[in-house]
Amino acid sequence: MRILVVNPNTTSSMTDKIRDTALAVAAPGTEILALNPADGPVSIEGHYDEAMSLPGLLTETRKGVADGADAVVIACFDDSGLEACREMVDVPVLGICEAAMAAASMVGHGFSVVTTLPRATPIIEALALKYGYERHCRRVRAAAIPVLALEEDSKAAAEKVRAEVLAAIEEDGAEAVLLGCAGMTDLAAALSAETGVPVIDGVAAAVKFAEALVGLGLKTCKRGAYAPPRPKTYSGALAAFAPTGKTS
Amino acid sequence: MRILVVNPNTTSSMTDKIRDTALAVAAPGTEILALNPADGPVSIEGHYDEAMSLPGLLTETRKGVADGADAVVIACFDDSGLEACREMVDVPVLGICEAAMAAASMVGHGFSVVTTLPRATPIIEALALKYGYERHCRRVRAAAIPVLALEEDSKAAAEKVRAEVLAAIEEDGAEAVLLGCAGMTDLAAALSAETGVPVIDGVAAAVKFAEALVGLGLKTCKRGAYAPPRPKTYSGALAAFAPTGKTS
Amino acid sequence: MRILVVNPNTTSSMTDKIRDTALAVAAPGTEILALNPADGPVSIEGHYDEAMSLPGLLTETRKGVADGADAVVIACFDDSGLEACREMVDVPVLGICEAAMAAASMVGHGFSVVTTLPRATPIIEALALKYGYERHCRRVRAAAIPVLALEEDSKAAAEKVRAEVLAAIEEDGAEAVLLGCAGMTDLAAALSAETGVPVIDGVAAAVKFAEALVGLGLKTCKRGAYAPPRPKTYSGALAAFAPTGKTS
Amino acid sequence: MRILVVNPNTTSSMTDKIRDTALAVAAPGTEILALNPADGPVSIEGHYDEAMSLPGLLTETRKGVADGADAVVIACFDDSGLEACREMVDVPVLGICEAAMAAASMVGHGFSVVTTLPRATPIIEALALKYGYERHCRRVRAAAIPVLALEEDSKAAAEKVRAEVLAAIEEDGAEAVLLGCAGMTDLAAALSAETGVPVIDGVAAAVKFAEALVGLGLKTCKRGAYAPPRPKTYSGALAAFAPTGKTS
Amino acid sequence: MRILVVNPNTTSSMTDKIRDTALAVAAPGTEILALNPADGPVSIEGHYDEAMSLPGLLTETRKGVADGADAVVIACFDDSGLEACREMVDVPVLGICEAAMAAASMVGHGFSVVTTLPRATPIIEALALKYGYERHCRRVRAAAIPVLALEEDSKAAAEKVRAEVLAAIEEDGAEAVLLGCAGMTDLAAALSAETGVPVIDGVAAAVKFAEALVGLGLKTCKRGAYAPPRPKTYSGALAAFAPTGKTS
Amino acid sequence: MRILVVNPNTTSSMTDKIRDTALAVAAPGTEILALNPADGPVSIEGHYDEAMSLPGLLTETRKGVADGADAVVIACFDDSGLEACREMVDVPVLGICEAAMAAASMVGHGFSVVTTLPRATPIIEALALKYGYERHCRRVRAAAIPVLALEEDSKAAAEKVRAEVLAAIEEDGAEAVLLGCAGMTDLAAALSAETGVPVIDGVAAAVKFAEALVGLGLKTCKRGAYAPPRPKTYSGALAAFAPTGKTS
Repeated sequence: MRILVVNPNTTSSMTDKIRDTALAVAAPGTEILALNPADGPVSIEGHYDEAMSLPGLLTETRKGVADGADAVVIACFDDSGLEACREMVDVPVLGICEAAMAAASMVGHGFSVVTTLPRATPIIEALALKYGYERHCRRVRAAAIPVLALEEDSKAAAEKVRAEVLAAIEEDGAEAVLLGCAGMTDLAAALSAETGVPVIDGVAAAVKFAEALVGLGLKTCKRGAYAPPRPKTYSGALAAFAPTGKTS
Repeated sequence: MRILVVNPNTTSSMTDKIRDTALAVAAPGTEILALNPADGPVSIEGHYDEAMSLPGLLTETRKGVADGADAVVIACFDDSGLEACREMVDVPVLGICEAAMAAASMVGHGFSVVTTLPRATPIIEALALKYGYERHCRRVRAAAIPVLALEEDSKAAAEKVRAEVLAAIEEDGAEAVLLGCAGMTDLAAALSAETGVPVIDGVAAAVKFAEALVGLGLKTCKRGAYAPPRPKTYSGALAAFAPTGKTS
Repeated sequence: MRILVVNPNTTSSMTDKIRDTALAVAAPGTEILALNPADGPVSIEGHYDEAMSLPGLLTETRKGVADGADAVVIACFDDSGLEACREMVDVPVLGICEAAMAAASMVGHGFSVVTTLPRATPIIEALALKYGYERHCRRVRAAAIPVLALEEDSKAAAEKVRAEVLAAIEEDGAEAVLLGCAGMTDLAAALSAETGVPVIDGVAAAVKFAEALVGLGLKTCKRGAYAPPRPKTYSGALAAFAPTGKTS
Repeated sequence: MRILVVNPNTTSSMTDKIRDTALAVAAPGTEILALNPADGPVSIEGHYDEAMSLPGLLTETRKGVADGADAVVIACFDDSGLEACREMVDVPVLGICEAAMAAASMVGHGFSVVTTLPRATPIIEALALKYGYERHCRRVRAAAIPVLALEEDSKAAAEKVRAEVLAAIEEDGAEAVLLGCAGMTDLAAALSAETGVPVIDGVAAAVKFAEALVGLGLKTCKRGAYAPPRPKTYSGALAAFAPTGKTS
Repeated sequence: MRILVVNPNTTSSMTDKIRDTALAVAAPGTEILALNPADGPVSIEGHYDEAMSLPGLLTETRKGVADGADAVVIACFDDSGLEACREMVDVPVLGICEAAMAAASMVGHGFSVVTTLPRATPIIEALALKYGYERHCRRVRAAAIPVLALEEDSKAAAEKVRAEVLAAIEEDGAEAVLLGCAGMTDLAAALSAETGVPVIDGVAAAVKFAEALVGLGLKTCKRGAYAPPRPKTYSGALAAFAPTGKTS
Repeated sequence: MRILVVNPNTTSSMTDKIRDTALAVAAPGTEILALNPADGPVSIEGHYDEAMSLPGLLTETRKGVADGADAVVIACFDDSGLEACREMVDVPVLGICEAAMAAASMVGHGFSVVTTLPRATPIIEALALKYGYERHCRRVRAAAIPVLALEEDSKAAAEKVRAEVLAAIEEDGAEAVLLGCAGMTDLAAALSAETGVPVIDGVAAAVKFAEALVGLGLKTCKRGAYAPPRPKTYSGALAAFAPTGKTS
């Protein structure tokens, strides 16, 4: 099977890290196609950036599925555009926050999240509520680092993440800790080993759960909430991102 | 004061109706600037369309506030891009769903919503949960009409809306009924008069609440969730929608 | 339009402060009628006092609407008698807690409340739950001052309120702070200016939202929860507070 | 021990029925003092009536405890003035709705309530939320009878109650049915016998739970939410209902 | 009436303490039958122990009711096997956590629990959610003592419990404190007296509430959730615990 | 990897069906060990049966992991003994209800469950609440068939299940339907194909998610809620089910 992993920002070094993680956990026979759009922001830090990432993300998702992807992983912990992607394709689409929270709830009683900037906290709390994990999520902690610090000053950033992971275990009593940014994907293994508590990276979790859903033969239900977008005219610069044959 | 009312789709006849409603309720001294972006979908029916509307909506919001708007109303019942707009500007930003639900909770004990297509139902239910009205919202009903039917076949569409409004009152015991699409803005008065139950249009509600917030001297808090977007590079076609001086 | 603002306690100096605030935010053309009953407690600190304030509050509300008020504001942060007043009249009735929480949710992501005595905390928490703001309300803080200290020792009281407002911003991460007593109505502007965070007074918020509801032509739904009180006999001292012609 | 049972309306025939029920379930050694105030409404149907009943209820409660009552039962299914009474006295105070819901949750998995008029429905739903039974309460049904119909036309009223009890069992799958008005207190036994499902009268439940709390030596906690009312001036007609020595 | 109090572990000294408490609060005419099974763990500390206690608990419950018990109390704060017991018999069955939480909610506004080991915390939090007290329960505190320390080193254990009770009052603002283990049953009175805050032992509470339910003539509803177990074959060692005549 | 799939009842024909399903979805390289205990009930229909199944289930789980299982699936839709098993072993343990609900939430917006007898409904509703899916679960439907009817009269039973699946889609608007009993595991594929809506069998879902968790290197957190059972004496017949070396 082929799993499309879309990093919705335009930073290719982060895409490389995401690809490495995906490849490391992929089952034999799973092909990983990791990429990022050419259009959009270099990092996603807040709702505005998320909005600006969507046309690129949606286009890559549509193309990737047209080219044969069996499932899609959105590799941003905001789960940007999750529902929009589900409308657009019929293969399973998973967000990495969604997958990480599901995995955490299966191996520990309550979890905390360690993310980048404080502005991500309310976004992740809202996701926990949407998915139903509001009682399982003990705290969302911000390491106070911009997303790209994980690329540019990765040692210092990693140390800040580690400090919050330790605090989550000691202060929150977290029985699993989620790394709340796709750019932290390379830190999970060492932190799990050090702490003895499951430290979960959403990219890896989403790839494995995507394999599971494909293995189950499940597809996104196209009735109701995720029915295909209705054909219509899209104007101006956005028309370039619309499905072929649907714009005027 | 000047209130910017952005219809996030590109259908100008709907913008005209929205402007009429806004003007009809605006206080003396309130200037209404109602417009729609040139870029994006002709109507917003689901998450994909919402995503495609955001760059245009955000650009119009940024420009309108730079030109002196004291508050912004997003005239789509999905409250598209509400948090992203709040990040971008410091004046109050209101969604019409948010405003309508707030108004309804002040004049009746529980409300129902009548919207267009069934696919809007989960979106509006999610908004009710986000705003805290999940216990107040008795039911979201779909009249089974596409958004543009309200423009193109308005008589038949209005009759379907009316039937659901009556059902909301009789079957749900709704003590207020919200019209769940900006394109229904012209139907509220007659339905209120006919039923004796408050039938609330979000455009009108949002304009009046925006006046109230401006009158209170309140601005969007720029600490925390709605801090300004961080300066960064936006690439490709999206760069055209980014704030001046922030793109590479 | 005429807005009746009822301070449900009998302290006229507090009524004067409330009137000043209401007048300061009222739109041109809005007449403010601020008053307090002659019967009842000098301040409302807990459920017993609230109960003792209701006959006077209800009588003033009934009279004020009979004399032409277009909306009613209950100027006590317990929102005393809100539902009872809504039963009695058909114009919109707003509590200042309700209005302040609605305003806060429109300009910040989560809010805290600063009230007077600790005994008010569970009352305000219960209101947050009733209105649906239990997830938005981060904390209700008590400044540990009796209500009348705001009248009699206003400088010391104001300083205690200020300390809690600062703590709400720093410790709770509040993106809006509500002043949880009508007697604090004169403190909001300076605290907003000092902190840069919206500090919201419920009296002002309720007056502006009342203007908005009247401007929308909305009235309290008289079906269901707020149907008029049924005609019946009221005996003894309470008969004096009952609607004319309904008592035996 | 002595249990004070206050019917907060002024209809003595209802008080008689309530006394009969209380006496029927009281343990040997439990003295029942059932009474109603002279001041207030003949029945409580909605928030306004509840407000008008409080001064009388509070006065009877204060007097009864001063005269030696070991616990207080408020015999109205709205649990009128429950918190205010708890502030005023230090013996346990129980509402009949609270007691009935607690009993129901101990003998069945989910319950429904059968009350009088539809306007009582939102009041009882709000109580279920306050007490934490919102997931246990399947439905609040109104038999569409005024409270006093239970006195004046008791046969017809009883038949309507019975029909709703049967519907609660068949349609809601209720595993317990609460009689949602103190005036229905004489109907519980026959309906339990007929249906084989626990049909619970709150008056009886509250008397037995009051006995239990007294037997446990528990008193209302006077720290925090139920601290005694602060001494202060109560003016006008309400002063007559204030505690001796506290008014000016 | 006869109340069967089953300590589901096999430690008879704890059963003795439980019996003492039950006898101390039982009404004249209430016979207490306190016992523990011969099969199972010496203490219940977690889900595994709870599972291992169930066959013994169920057998004692079935026998005790067959021998005439009018109600059953399960004397473990995990409320082990509560629903299974309710299926098996038709008399009321009460857990001591359930009873203590119900009592606490009647005499204070919010409560905390003091239990033994940290591993009991999520179990008690889950019970609070199941019963609907999740908003009333401020915190579950662990005194970090094994269950049997209450038997073997009771002085030191009691002191640790006392420290947490004091912290619950001061730090959590608890208006009632529940002793979260049947082995603490002898500590409640002294702690109540010392603190002036209701310190509630579940064994006592459950005995009194069981008396109340029996006094009300209430039985467990045998329709729906608590219908009798269906006759079937139970094999192997478990067959010894199955109802006579039902196994193959 | 080796996945242990324990059917906690003693009906081997059901175990055979479960094994077939597990084998059908297992990845190459995954060994399936499907078995049932010799001790316990022939089917699990309610809390009593669940309790009687636990000693056998726990023993098989302990043995299977000691023999090298990398993950455990509990193949009963009540997720019997899930937390107890998690305490006992350190490999991931999944319930089939848990897995099915997680899968459903990834491919549709809201789901319904079709189970066997009405008595299973409250059990499954409680699981939905525990896992956080209470808002996603639209309805739990009972096909009114005993568990073993799926073995003995499988054609008639399958037809009843099918009717409820269709009703879930049409009446509840379910975008995924869960088969709420391990005995229905062979019906999922045909119902998915017929309806075009994901019809999800928990056995298959749990096997695939177990593979995913093992592939991620995740283990059950042994701090906190799932710490190993404390060594202690287990007496009587239950001692046979206790871990070697731990009983007296």
